[in-house]
Amino acid sequence: MEANAVLDLMWIVVCGILVFFMQAGFTLVEVGFTRAKNTANIIMKNLMDLAIGSLGFWIIGYTIMYGDDIGTFIGSPSLFYTVREDMHNLFFQTVFCATAATIVSGAIAERTKFSTYLIFSLLMTVLIYPISGHWVWQGDGWLTNLGFIDFAGSTVVHSVGGWAALVAAALVGPRIGKYTNGKSNAIPGHNMLYGALGVFILWLGWFGFNPGSELAISGDSAYNVAGIVITTNLAAAAGAVVSLFLTWIRYGKADISMTLNGALAGLVGITAGCAAVSPMGAFIIGIISGIVVVFSIEFIDKVLKVDDPVGAISVHGVVGAVGTLCVGLFATDGGLFYGGGFKQLGVQAIGVLGIGAWAMIATFIVLFILKKTIGLRVSEHEELEGLDRTEHGVDSYPEFGNDK
Amino acid sequence: MEANAVLDLMWIVVCGILVFFMQAGFTLVEVGFTRAKNTANIIMKNLMDLAIGSLGFWIIGYTIMYGDDIGTFIGSPSLFYTVREDMHNLFFQTVFCATAATIVSGAIAERTKFSTYLIFSLLMTVLIYPISGHWVWQGDGWLTNLGFIDFAGSTVVHSVGGWAALVAAALVGPRIGKYTNGKSNAIPGHNMLYGALGVFILWLGWFGFNPGSELAISGDSAYNVAGIVITTNLAAAAGAVVSLFLTWIRYGKADISMTLNGALAGLVGITAGCAAVSPMGAFIIGIISGIVVVFSIEFIDKVLKVDDPVGAISVHGVVGAVGTLCVGLFATDGGLFYGGGFKQLGVQAIGVLGIGAWAMIATFIVLFILKKTIGLRVSEHEELEGLDRTEHGVDSYPEFGNDK
Amino acid sequence: MEANAVLDLMWIVVCGILVFFMQAGFTLVEVGFTRAKNTANIIMKNLMDLAIGSLGFWIIGYTIMYGDDIGTFIGSPSLFYTVREDMHNLFFQTVFCATAATIVSGAIAERTKFSTYLIFSLLMTVLIYPISGHWVWQGDGWLTNLGFIDFAGSTVVHSVGGWAALVAAALVGPRIGKYTNGKSNAIPGHNMLYGALGVFILWLGWFGFNPGSELAISGDSAYNVAGIVITTNLAAAAGAVVSLFLTWIRYGKADISMTLNGALAGLVGITAGCAAVSPMGAFIIGIISGIVVVFSIEFIDKVLKVDDPVGAISVHGVVGAVGTLCVGLFATDGGLFYGGGFKQLGVQAIGVLGIGAWAMIATFIVLFILKKTIGLRVSEHEELEGLDRTEHGVDSYPEFGNDK
Repeated sequence: MEANAVLDLMWIVVCGILVFFMQAGFTLVEVGFTRAKNTANIIMKNLMDLAIGSLGFWIIGYTIMYGDDIGTFIGSPSLFYTVREDMHNLFFQTVFCATAATIVSGAIAERTKFSTYLIFSLLMTVLIYPISGHWVWQGDGWLTNLGFIDFAGSTVVHSVGGWAALVAAALVGPRIGKYTNGKSNAIPGHNMLYGALGVFILWLGWFGFNPGSELAISGDSAYNVAGIVITTNLAAAAGAVVSLFLTWIRYGKADISMTLNGALAGLVGITAGCAAVSPMGAFIIGIISGIVVVFSIEFIDKVLKVDDPVGAISVHGVVGAVGTLCVGLFATDGGLFYGGGFKQLGVQAIGVLGIGAWAMIATFIVLFILKKTIGLRVSEHEELEGLDRTEHGVDSYPEFGNDK
Repeated sequence: MEANAVLDLMWIVVCGILVFFMQAGFTLVEVGFTRAKNTANIIMKNLMDLAIGSLGFWIIGYTIMYGDDIGTFIGSPSLFYTVREDMHNLFFQTVFCATAATIVSGAIAERTKFSTYLIFSLLMTVLIYPISGHWVWQGDGWLTNLGFIDFAGSTVVHSVGGWAALVAAALVGPRIGKYTNGKSNAIPGHNMLYGALGVFILWLGWFGFNPGSELAISGDSAYNVAGIVITTNLAAAAGAVVSLFLTWIRYGKADISMTLNGALAGLVGITAGCAAVSPMGAFIIGIISGIVVVFSIEFIDKVLKVDDPVGAISVHGVVGAVGTLCVGLFATDGGLFYGGGFKQLGVQAIGVLGIGAWAMIATFIVLFILKKTIGLRVSEHEELEGLDRTEHGVDSYPEFGNDK
Repeated sequence: MEANAVLDLMWIVVCGILVFFMQAGFTLVEVGFTRAKNTANIIMKNLMDLAIGSLGFWIIGYTIMYGDDIGTFIGSPSLFYTVREDMHNLFFQTVFCATAATIVSGAIAERTKFSTYLIFSLLMTVLIYPISGHWVWQGDGWLTNLGFIDFAGSTVVHSVGGWAALVAAALVGPRIGKYTNGKSNAIPGHNMLYGALGVFILWLGWFGFNPGSELAISGDSAYNVAGIVITTNLAAAAGAVVSLFLTWIRYGKADISMTLNGALAGLVGITAGCAAVSPMGAFIIGIISGIVVVFSIEFIDKVLKVDDPVGAISVHGVVGAVGTLCVGLFATDGGLFYGGGFKQLGVQAIGVLGIGAWAMIATFIVLFILKKTIGLRVSEHEELEGLDRTEHGVDSYPEFGNDK
């Protein structure tokens, strides 16, 4: 293989490794923002998203997503992928796939049956995610044909996870004690350091997620990659700063969980347009993301009364949609504010709505069936006791804790 | 230097950096799976494996392993390695070496004298590991001459550590309270999140460990590297899934520590054959590893009654051996199931036995001398009090804990 | 772009990503070495160093540092950097900049007002750091003209942070209870595992910090990069080992926080000369750094009576200076011990003093103004209650802790 091709392959592998590490970040954020008694359960869910997702995507999911197009809607499935010359792409797409499943985990934490979750996670990674992914990234899908732009997956990965999370959290219902007399009660996460380390790791992993989605680094791609690193970093920074000051003004305290979510919102928001906007565009998208995430979390918590312990629906679903629309506004080639008119914005809206509808309907069908069969939720006793003891027979911190 | 050579050097450096980070993973797993009162001691042991190992391997270990061959048995030692054109290899091999030492640490945790451990760790990194490593990886060793295949070190690194761990744990003896009236008592680890984060970091680092062992990425190596990334990931995923379901069925609970060890077992198991087997072969090796590790941990704990707090002997020693033998079964070129007959399997068995015997005998001699001189084990009082206070004069979590 | 140029760009991006991750390491070390009640505050400070620093350096800091030279003293500022062909350098320098600010955070932890800190952090990243950085790294600065060598920033990054930390810690004053009746009281950090994980991550990140400062990997740079990886690793290892044994002898216990700081000291010490010294030179610099850091921490704590909870002044300031001077001793080209005479040593001393004076005076002016306006320090009540509750309205570990 020639040096430029090796460079491209190496870049995809290195970025895939960074994206892989995001699973640790998701685990830390979810564990840190929930209660100690469900730590092992959350770890197991995230670990299985990765493990089951890696197997499922290799066995069939990858070809459903990237196989020869059937009717602009789905790839031609084949089992146990073996194309040696394409293993770097399989790896890169596998770790993306695991990300989409993991997003749902956070929104339904602390009350969902482990067995039910595993089945949903499997279907997410072999069916729900690959099909809508096919529409955008395989090359012949109907959204590609329309001109829809989602460079690294604000919608393909994050919104899909976020909308699935919305349906799942609504169906599973809130945690015991979350809403009393129509009032939303805060249930504090048990370790802010875990949450913060998780965000640092996710931010780190995003330097694989977005710049790796160039799928090359040789030739003209090199400056693209470097530009994406900068837009990614600026949006994350702007999201964090804006969420900090917004909550500081609104709550009178410099809120840590909102600031951490602000950084993540900036990252999700820039994911669709990271290669299409200027640094200034990224800065503005980060600001928008940091504002939207705060109001969205409040809205879902207090108005919709959907219990999302980690804010996943807002961070990934709402901001993912907003970020995808922002491409229609700020893309230097085709964006509304760069003289491109409403065309790109319209296409972006179609993509956001189409994929959102798919994710929600598909998730609803899967979970409705699971609800009527094995059930979605643990018993009240199990929830109060904590899933670590009832599902996994373990105490995650046996030497610590106020109930010892 | 020409671009392809730069690519190879860069790949070795990047992978070495990933393997370096595995030290943090080992530390987290060992700390998480043991009790809070020994946290600082475990940190110090792992940090010193890295620090003393880095110095020792540079000072003499590297040339014992890779120096000009003497009798197919040992490299020609020279002091303070200075070959500028070979510093990337020195680095890559140094972090491998530190791994082998660290494996032993987990098996003798919570009761071994710190000073004794440091001496053993030094001898492991400058003598025990480099000599058997020479047999396989230097190019002129007797196992290389036989045709023994251990691509990234299921045996050269992991089994050596695992068998040394077996001898060490047997000589040091079980922790106080581990076995009473012939019954094995579980001593829960104090933080499952640390254990899980450690496994994520180790899995991450393995993407340096195995693909980096190609020692190149240019030309034909590029597809090899990508293939190794996939075999590594599939085996880890399969190991985790299989251990999960196996323990779920056997214990009635989805066991977290076994599942985490299942992922590690998949990684150790595929290390020897990661470049020689197909994705399907890797999948099967992962399944085998996930089954073997569960029964091995039970056997060593309940039948052999050797106290190994983190399961290191099973994960690294037993699964390392099984994974090495699997090359003789599943190698697409020479494996029994691919029409290769028993030849390769026989050679693999010789390598497993030869290196296992070496690791056990050498460890026995070193630890026997240490036992008769400075002693292996802390006093009963020190063990009950915890090594953090007695060896290091520190309380690792002074604001937390039930004994406060 | 041609393959060699792509290689260089890729290397800078990869190393920048590693340096980015150091922010997580600094956060972990600072959180681990201080008390639980200030965890969220420390996280927020470090996160904002990164976020505000990323924005500020892009908006103006980068051109103040690297813009066209004005009088050998400062770069020509321009707003909102947009040079597409230079985004990889912007990124690499941005994460360096964030490091310098973060060093100060540790020394003034647990008693500084959050709003004051943010303003100082902003000024550090857009003014103090870029100006002295310009003197050495832009190419036309007065220290470059003198022949000053600071390859990766023992002085440009670490000493600047360290001397700013000294002035800041002196101005803010010690924590309540730190000094009583002229005696220094130890205030134990609340989590040694966080501290250790932080050090592992920093050590990891340093493989981007130092080898990335070559700013290339193609051609002749390849062996330089590999050599720097080795000098960096050997110095860190030597620093850790020396600090361990020195404190073991002096205190009778193998001290964990000093050993961790010894590793960091080795890393800071080698940063200036990592490309100029041999492995043996690095080994010696590591030994010197490991000795200096122990005595410096004791001196600052017990004699100067400046309260530095994490030892940042010693690790980054004092050892950064010593490491910079060591270039004048051990550089294989120009060092005193390699027949180069006192010339290089003299130049190194001028750089250390000049930049030290700048960092201290600039910090003093900024903090003096802040002290007279919004104040530097939280109230006694807030400090005793902890900054998490009073500044951020959060309890970082609501289910744990002895005061529950």
